[in-house]
Amino acid sequence: MADQYVQSGEDKRPSGIPAIRWDEPPEGPVLVLLDQTRLPAEEVELVCTDAPALVEAIRSLAVRGAPLLGIAGAYGVALAAARGFDVDEAATALAGARPTAVNLAVGVRRARSAYLAELAKSGDAGRAAEAALAAARALHQEDAEASARMAEHGMALLEELLPGGGHRILTHCNTGSLVSGGEGTAFAVALTAHRVGQLRRLWVDETRPLLQGARLTAYEAARNGMAYTLLTDGAAGSLFSAGEVDAVLIGADRIAADGSVANKVGSYPLAVLARYHHVPFIVVAPVTTIDPDTPDGASIEVEQRPGHEVTEVTAPQVPVAGAEAGGGIPVAPLGTQAYNPAFDVTPPELVTAIVTEEGVVSPVTAEALTELCARSSQVTIS
Amino acid sequence: MADQYVQSGEDKRPSGIPAIRWDEPPEGPVLVLLDQTRLPAEEVELVCTDAPALVEAIRSLAVRGAPLLGIAGAYGVALAAARGFDVDEAATALAGARPTAVNLAVGVRRARSAYLAELAKSGDAGRAAEAALAAARALHQEDAEASARMAEHGMALLEELLPGGGHRILTHCNTGSLVSGGEGTAFAVALTAHRVGQLRRLWVDETRPLLQGARLTAYEAARNGMAYTLLTDGAAGSLFSAGEVDAVLIGADRIAADGSVANKVGSYPLAVLARYHHVPFIVVAPVTTIDPDTPDGASIEVEQRPGHEVTEVTAPQVPVAGAEAGGGIPVAPLGTQAYNPAFDVTPPELVTAIVTEEGVVSPVTAEALTELCARSSQVTIS
Repeated sequence: MADQYVQSGEDKRPSGIPAIRWDEPPEGPVLVLLDQTRLPAEEVELVCTDAPALVEAIRSLAVRGAPLLGIAGAYGVALAAARGFDVDEAATALAGARPTAVNLAVGVRRARSAYLAELAKSGDAGRAAEAALAAARALHQEDAEASARMAEHGMALLEELLPGGGHRILTHCNTGSLVSGGEGTAFAVALTAHRVGQLRRLWVDETRPLLQGARLTAYEAARNGMAYTLLTDGAAGSLFSAGEVDAVLIGADRIAADGSVANKVGSYPLAVLARYHHVPFIVVAPVTTIDPDTPDGASIEVEQRPGHEVTEVTAPQVPVAGAEAGGGIPVAPLGTQAYNPAFDVTPPELVTAIVTEEGVVSPVTAEALTELCARSSQVTIS
Repeated sequence: MADQYVQSGEDKRPSGIPAIRWDEPPEGPVLVLLDQTRLPAEEVELVCTDAPALVEAIRSLAVRGAPLLGIAGAYGVALAAARGFDVDEAATALAGARPTAVNLAVGVRRARSAYLAELAKSGDAGRAAEAALAAARALHQEDAEASARMAEHGMALLEELLPGGGHRILTHCNTGSLVSGGEGTAFAVALTAHRVGQLRRLWVDETRPLLQGARLTAYEAARNGMAYTLLTDGAAGSLFSAGEVDAVLIGADRIAADGSVANKVGSYPLAVLARYHHVPFIVVAPVTTIDPDTPDGASIEVEQRPGHEVTEVTAPQVPVAGAEAGGGIPVAPLGTQAYNPAFDVTPPELVTAIVTEEGVVSPVTAEALTELCARSSQVTIS
C-alpha cells in the first residue's frame, strides 16, 4: 500500500526532493517516490510498502523515465524481499507494469538475480534480501555516475561544436533528476553548462500531450535557478528562424543498432528543423538505451496512447466535476478520434551526435555504436 | 451591450449556426455572433446592440479570423449608424480593437466610406445607415463568393498535384466558416474534396496554445461529417514519416510582397517538414491578404501574446476556483516565462502554391503575386 506525505517546504536542497529513495523507518523498509503526477502544483511523496503499490505508481506515471524505472524496479524487488513477500511474484508484476520500458525489466532482473544468487549460496532469506537491496543501490549509484559522465562528455561536445559558450539550448520532454538516479541525461548537460556559466537560455518545449516540459522540466529548471523559457511545441520553428537556438539536446527511450532514436513525440520535427537551420541535434542517453536487437528505426514499435490525452486536458490538482473517461476537461467535440503516438523516430542521418557515459558517437553509424557497446561491456566486466 | 442565447438544438443546417448574422427584431437592429470562446462545449450566440459590445467580442476572440473580422467591422459601423450612435467614434473603436488585423480596419473603412458618401449626397442619416449596411452585406457576400472560388481553385490544384484523389490533408489552426462569410479558406478546399468523395482524411493539428484546431476545426469537421483525426502539433512529424500526409493546406494572416506567409504559430515547422518529405505545402487566402506594403518576411511584425496562454490551460466551460491571472489552470511553475508568438513566417521557397479567389500562384514569386494583385484590382474595378 501507499501513503502520501506533502512536503513541508523546509527543503533546502536546490534540486528538491529526490525522485526515489529507500527509507527504513521503525515500521519497516519503504520505497518513497516523489509523485510526478502532482508536479508542479504540489510536492507529494508516495510511500510504497509493497510491490503492488509500486506497480500502481508506475502505471499512473507517478514514477517515470527510463533510467528511474529501472531503479524503481530493482528497489521494488528489494522491498518485496525485505518484507518477506513472494519475490518472484513481485518481480513478474513489476516487470510487466509498463511492458515497453526496457530498463524496468532490466532493473527487476538485476535485483532478482542478486536475491536468488545469495539465497542459493547461503540459504538465508534475510541475507538474500540484503543482496537485492545492495543490487538496487548499486544500480542507483551507477546511474548517478553515468549521469555525471554524460554531462561531462556532453559539455565537452558543446564546447567543441559551439566554442565561446553562452549556449541557447532547446530541449523537449523531461530528462533531468526526475527520470534518473542522478541529474539525468540531456538536462544534466544543460545543468552543467548552467553551473559553469555557459548557459544563456534553456528553451523548454511544453511537450504535448502530457506537458512534461511545462510541468517537470520547467520545475527542474526553476529549482536549479536556470534561465529558462517555456514555449509551445509549435513555436520552436520561430526560435530556429530567429537564430535563437544553438543546439537541441534531447534524451532517448530506445536507440536502434543503426542509430535511429526513439524519443518523446515531437522530437523528430525538431531534428528536421535543426537540420534545415544547420543547428546540432544531440541525443544524450546511457549505453543501456542502445538496443542491438532492434536493427533500425522501422523495427521500433511505437506505443499508441489513449486519445483522451489529446481530446481532454488534465490538470491533476483540479478536480473536474462531470469529467470524461480520461478525467480531464474536454477540449474537442465529443467523439473526436485522436492520433497519439507516444514516441517518434529520428533517423541517424539527422542526429549530430549521441552522448553516452562511455563517450560520444559522431557521426552516428551502426559501426560506431557497436564499438561503443563493446567498449562499454568490457568496462562493466572489468 | 451584448446578450447571450444558448442554441436550442433545433438547428438542422449541417454546418451549424452562422458565425455572424445581422438581425432586425422589433427592438431594433442587432449583430448576432456565435461565441467562439464557448465552442465546442456550447453554441451560444452573442447579441451586440452597439459598437462597444462588438469591440469587446473582438477583443475576447468571441469573433475572430481575418475575413470574418472585416465583415464584423463593417456590420459594426452599420449597427452604430442604424442605432444613431456616432459613426466616426464607433469606426475608430472598432478599427483599433485588434490593431494587427488588417481586414478589420479595411471592413470598417468600407462601411464608413459608404455611410459618409451617402450622407454627403443626400444629407439623410437614415439612408446613410442603409448604405453602410449595404456595404457590410456586400462585403459579406463577396467573402462567401471568394471562399467558393478559392475552394474551386484549390480543388483543381489538388487534382493536378495529386491525381487519383483519396487525399489525406493536414491542416493547422481554424480556417472554415467560423472565420469567413462563406466556408473559409484552407478548410473550404478540404470540405470540397470531402463533398466530391476525394477526402480520405483531414488531419487536424490541435494548434496550441489556444487549441483552435481541437476546439474549432474539429467542430467544423464533425458538423460536416468529414473523416478527421486530431493530433498534437508535435505528432505531425510522425504522420509525415509514415507517409500519411499528401498535402498541407493552411490559411494566412498576411502575405508579404515576396510571398512570405505569416500564419498561426506552428505553420512554419509544417512547411519545413513538408519540404523534407516532398509533400506540397499550400496556402489558401483571399487576395486581400497579400500586402504589397510589406516587402518581405522580415518586415512582418509578429504579435507576441501573453505568456499565460502557455503556462495555463483555459477551458472556458469550466470555472476554476482560485484561477490565476489568465483565468486558467496553471500547468507550469508559478513565475515561468513563456515565449508565445501568435504567428510565424514561412518563406516563399517553402510554399508550393498560394491559392486565391483570383487563381493560383505557383511557384510563389514577387512578380507572380504583383500580377495577381493587378488582375484582381482590374476585376474589382470592372
